[in-house]
Amino acid sequence: MTTMLDRLALIITSRRGANPSASYVAALLAKGRAGIAKKLGEEAVETVIAAVADDRAGMIAESADLLFHLSVLWADAGITPDDIDAELARREGVSGIAEKAARKGD
Amino acid sequence: MTTMLDRLALIITSRRGANPSASYVAALLAKGRAGIAKKLGEEAVETVIAAVADDRAGMIAESADLLFHLSVLWADAGITPDDIDAELARREGVSGIAEKAARKGD
Amino acid sequence: MTTMLDRLALIITSRRGANPSASYVAALLAKGRAGIAKKLGEEAVETVIAAVADDRAGMIAESADLLFHLSVLWADAGITPDDIDAELARREGVSGIAEKAARKGD
Amino acid sequence: MTTMLDRLALIITSRRGANPSASYVAALLAKGRAGIAKKLGEEAVETVIAAVADDRAGMIAESADLLFHLSVLWADAGITPDDIDAELARREGVSGIAEKAARKGD
Repeated sequence: MTTMLDRLALIITSRRGANPSASYVAALLAKGRAGIAKKLGEEAVETVIAAVADDRAGMIAESADLLFHLSVLWADAGITPDDIDAELARREGVSGIAEKAARKGD
Repeated sequence: MTTMLDRLALIITSRRGANPSASYVAALLAKGRAGIAKKLGEEAVETVIAAVADDRAGMIAESADLLFHLSVLWADAGITPDDIDAELARREGVSGIAEKAARKGD
Repeated sequence: MTTMLDRLALIITSRRGANPSASYVAALLAKGRAGIAKKLGEEAVETVIAAVADDRAGMIAESADLLFHLSVLWADAGITPDDIDAELARREGVSGIAEKAARKGD
Repeated sequence: MTTMLDRLALIITSRRGANPSASYVAALLAKGRAGIAKKLGEEAVETVIAAVADDRAGMIAESADLLFHLSVLWADAGITPDDIDAELARREGVSGIAEKAARKGD
């Protein structure tokens, strides 16, 4: 079964080599790491704004944008959804506030 | 099969009613919408910084944090991973730069 | 003597009533609170990226953008540079980590 | 006359060499560029949230925090308020949407 994040990763990989003038993904990858990170930051700000405004449809749309741009950032760094899954699974042994304290340090 | 985001949603739901002093999820939900959104924004900033610093392990750790806090925000708003999946699937009919232009407007 | 932030406030006030098609300030104010806040968030992300990339010229340019959009946000809320100055002056009596702890709570 | 941003710069310079356990500024500078940038990003997110929630007192408090942490970031990079002032003055020759277009490119 293909999950949502795996599907995004596949779409991004398939468009990777396309002409930047014809593909948003290719155009975004052509901006480089800082350019992609900037877009991720923008989508996060929009998600925060929709959340505080209690705009449910906006939260869904901006969350989709956020996951999409996060997936492009992962692709640019050679990170797969499985890498994130493994990190989350590793943390699941630890739980609650103790877990957060453990992973945040300071 | 349970995907990573479904698993996060289940964990969050299971901790929802816990004592905030014993559960990070319950403590976070008790902060309310703005408090959860603030944490999402912070994790996004950390993901951006790890990305620009080209810190692969940091990108994986911060992305996991980002997905975790995004999942808490969804839970707080009654949004499920399926809602986001449906939004992404809807967009997949449209593609490339045209798709982005269509969803961004202005 | 007019300070940088007072000068920005004056410029913004003077353009406030202009035609949005001819004035960036008027166009930005026409977007409303969430639209202006979104731009502030974007400029902050760009400042963070320039800082982490150790791009001094970029930090100066993005900081100028940040102050400009922050000033528009203040104008939209009827906040003046003097209001911020008073808040900072109030804090100056308290200092160091004690001061931070006092103002951050939690 | 000393302006608000000059005063912040002076305070930060005066605390720069202090013991990080006794001075918030010294502790923040000890975190290094990414750590300071992270705090700036967090304060920007809090300003955005206060703005969207239309919380005037919160906007003033978070704006003061934002300017404070921005000033620490400048100090860390050897940037002075005069550098930002010169950049803003340079832009004032150009105005409105044309100016924004000129400085934003794309």
